[in-house]
Amino acid sequence: MPARNAFYAQSGGVTAVINTSAAGVIEAARDHPEAINTVYAGVNGILGALDEQLIDTGRESAESIAALRYTPGGAFGSARYKLKGLDENRAEYERLIEVFRAHDIGYFFYNGGGDSQDTAHKVSQLGEAMGYPITCIGVPKTVDNDLPGTDTCPGFGSVAKYIAVATREAGLDVASMAETSTRVFILETMGRHAGWIAAASALARDHEEAPPHVILLPEVALDEARFLERVRACVERIGYCVVVVSEGLRTADGRFVADQGTRDAFGHAQLGGVAPAIAAMVRERLGYKYHYAIADYLQRAARHIASATDVEQAHALGRAAVEFAVAGHNAVMPTIVRDADAPYRWHIGQVPLADVANREARMPAEYIDADNLFVTEAALRYLRPLIAGEDYPPYRDGLPEHVHLRAERVAPRCPPFRD
Amino acid sequence: MPARNAFYAQSGGVTAVINTSAAGVIEAARDHPEAINTVYAGVNGILGALDEQLIDTGRESAESIAALRYTPGGAFGSARYKLKGLDENRAEYERLIEVFRAHDIGYFFYNGGGDSQDTAHKVSQLGEAMGYPITCIGVPKTVDNDLPGTDTCPGFGSVAKYIAVATREAGLDVASMAETSTRVFILETMGRHAGWIAAASALARDHEEAPPHVILLPEVALDEARFLERVRACVERIGYCVVVVSEGLRTADGRFVADQGTRDAFGHAQLGGVAPAIAAMVRERLGYKYHYAIADYLQRAARHIASATDVEQAHALGRAAVEFAVAGHNAVMPTIVRDADAPYRWHIGQVPLADVANREARMPAEYIDADNLFVTEAALRYLRPLIAGEDYPPYRDGLPEHVHLRAERVAPRCPPFRD
Repeated sequence: MPARNAFYAQSGGVTAVINTSAAGVIEAARDHPEAINTVYAGVNGILGALDEQLIDTGRESAESIAALRYTPGGAFGSARYKLKGLDENRAEYERLIEVFRAHDIGYFFYNGGGDSQDTAHKVSQLGEAMGYPITCIGVPKTVDNDLPGTDTCPGFGSVAKYIAVATREAGLDVASMAETSTRVFILETMGRHAGWIAAASALARDHEEAPPHVILLPEVALDEARFLERVRACVERIGYCVVVVSEGLRTADGRFVADQGTRDAFGHAQLGGVAPAIAAMVRERLGYKYHYAIADYLQRAARHIASATDVEQAHALGRAAVEFAVAGHNAVMPTIVRDADAPYRWHIGQVPLADVANREARMPAEYIDADNLFVTEAALRYLRPLIAGEDYPPYRDGLPEHVHLRAERVAPRCPPFRD
Repeated sequence: MPARNAFYAQSGGVTAVINTSAAGVIEAARDHPEAINTVYAGVNGILGALDEQLIDTGRESAESIAALRYTPGGAFGSARYKLKGLDENRAEYERLIEVFRAHDIGYFFYNGGGDSQDTAHKVSQLGEAMGYPITCIGVPKTVDNDLPGTDTCPGFGSVAKYIAVATREAGLDVASMAETSTRVFILETMGRHAGWIAAASALARDHEEAPPHVILLPEVALDEARFLERVRACVERIGYCVVVVSEGLRTADGRFVADQGTRDAFGHAQLGGVAPAIAAMVRERLGYKYHYAIADYLQRAARHIASATDVEQAHALGRAAVEFAVAGHNAVMPTIVRDADAPYRWHIGQVPLADVANREARMPAEYIDADNLFVTEAALRYLRPLIAGEDYPPYRDGLPEHVHLRAERVAPRCPPFRD
């Protein structure tokens, strides 16, 4: 069978290590010239295929590809763009096949979360049906850690480490000032539906009374009275309280706590910000001085404090996607299989895309404390190895150095598809 | 002259490296047993003297003192507590002298900002007047970089590095998603009166169109129309815009932008948060999707990404305070004197406390761009060396290790002062 080209695309929210997976894919493809000619990367992910905007990664040096390992964000551009169902918008899938055919693309590597695995699955089905069989392999990625069938997802370990480090550092700050300043510090983390990121802050606790003291998860409705009582008791006992809260925290009636009816100067609903809502509660009901931080993109872009374990897994999964494809597998996603907690041992496995698509892995109930205000030792045992190890980027003039790719475009061969 | 004891206290907002200065003070004191017996550290800063809560640092191992270098926050506790003028509350100053006398304290090292240098100055004057001469030396500290008479203040270089790194990393994130997601990203930094921290984000810019694209400083009133036009032009040209804003930004009529009349669910003014106010402006007037981050304490506690230059200077200034005291200087503060920009060369100087007390060093006008929306090359030349070098803390289980001191208290010898 003659070698063919590959298409690689990044999808959804980017992470500190999605480019590390890209490096894994491209480097492994270069190791298999008998099967893969060139990896074309989509400009802005799957939009790059629809718009026939392809970057020829063959024009990048080995050094540049290796440097992707240290570069956060999406080096080729990512997109929040979910292809509809086959019945609703068959034209988009047909367009993908048209572009793939024009560039002799025989492999599709889709680096994303649940939606993206669903898309990769559909493309593999449609290609078959249209007489253009294409090998579709998912590469897992999501800071939310909510993909099923894998021990963890690349991107999560690094954001978990960032949040744990930030909690420990800011906790020391608050502790040292509490007597005359801030009593309650609130750190808002990402996580609309799953509390994995907020839960990881618990790793910061190195003794019984160390921060964080309360973790508010989206899996359980906020019991305001119980929460405030916990904060009050903590401040009375040790002088301060550190609260970590997931952006997706909800009230008992299912509303986001962040949507507290707050109005801005123009009278419009002020969106976002569960931290200020929690802070207002603390001030109104307890009267404590507070501060809050909203880490937002800083947490998922923080390559400077990435987990070495996460980086290693991101790279290995990128490589494995190519190895699986070359070995004849199709419509699968490589996964992390945990062999042991401590010391952490793992190997690469795989799941069918059909089993991953559109399913969400929530935190198990046994990871949440009985009072719903912290996580359990079982959660810590699961989380601990994921943040292990540092993998510092190179620095110049005090700042991390990131690669700037040549990003040369492949000449289009198809008519335009969208305006 | 027989050796006497020393009193060391941390004051005001803590930093990533105030404990590094503490290590410098304590280590230098141990090098001078002929002059200094023991360094007593105040529990919660100056309150520790008023309340006679003193920690005997002589009970700490050399390893523990050295590990202070890696530990953010205030290891002995700090306080936002400004002693009033001598005429208003002479009793507090007399109490200080009483406690100093009871513990044979001949040296007072006060590690803080402008207010603290003023206090150290007053104590030196009063001691003289009360027949209890005491050597008072200031040790500079403030993330705001607003102490006069020194090239920079310990704490600033590290927060500057944190903000520059965060801007570069988050900028890559936003750039890669802008086509289908966030167009405008806003990062709120500390800085009520001086824009040094926000200005430091400019160091992230490694090419003409790189983030940050706009910096809003407290030194200049917000020109909303000009600001929005700059954002619009930036998004139209490159697809996205990164804005860094100082918490102290003000409107033309002198109000804080953060106080936009926003009301929470209870109808109370929502305090803090210039970022959401700027975000609301962007949404209302330009209609762009936005995200914002509020780094808050994360920035000043971020020892994990401290500037090696800052760490070195913090330690050197702590040592110098002791060396000056032992050499017979009094009522002075050691300073950083810049000899050259690139390569950065500096040495330790000194200024009289009288010249530092209650004066604020603002950003010079020539550091702010003509359009008031960015900083100049002169500012970058000043800032660049201050973030140079990394000084990573040791890690265990994926998290930075911080020292937990024994913190043994000295037995009180005076009657209680406050309830």
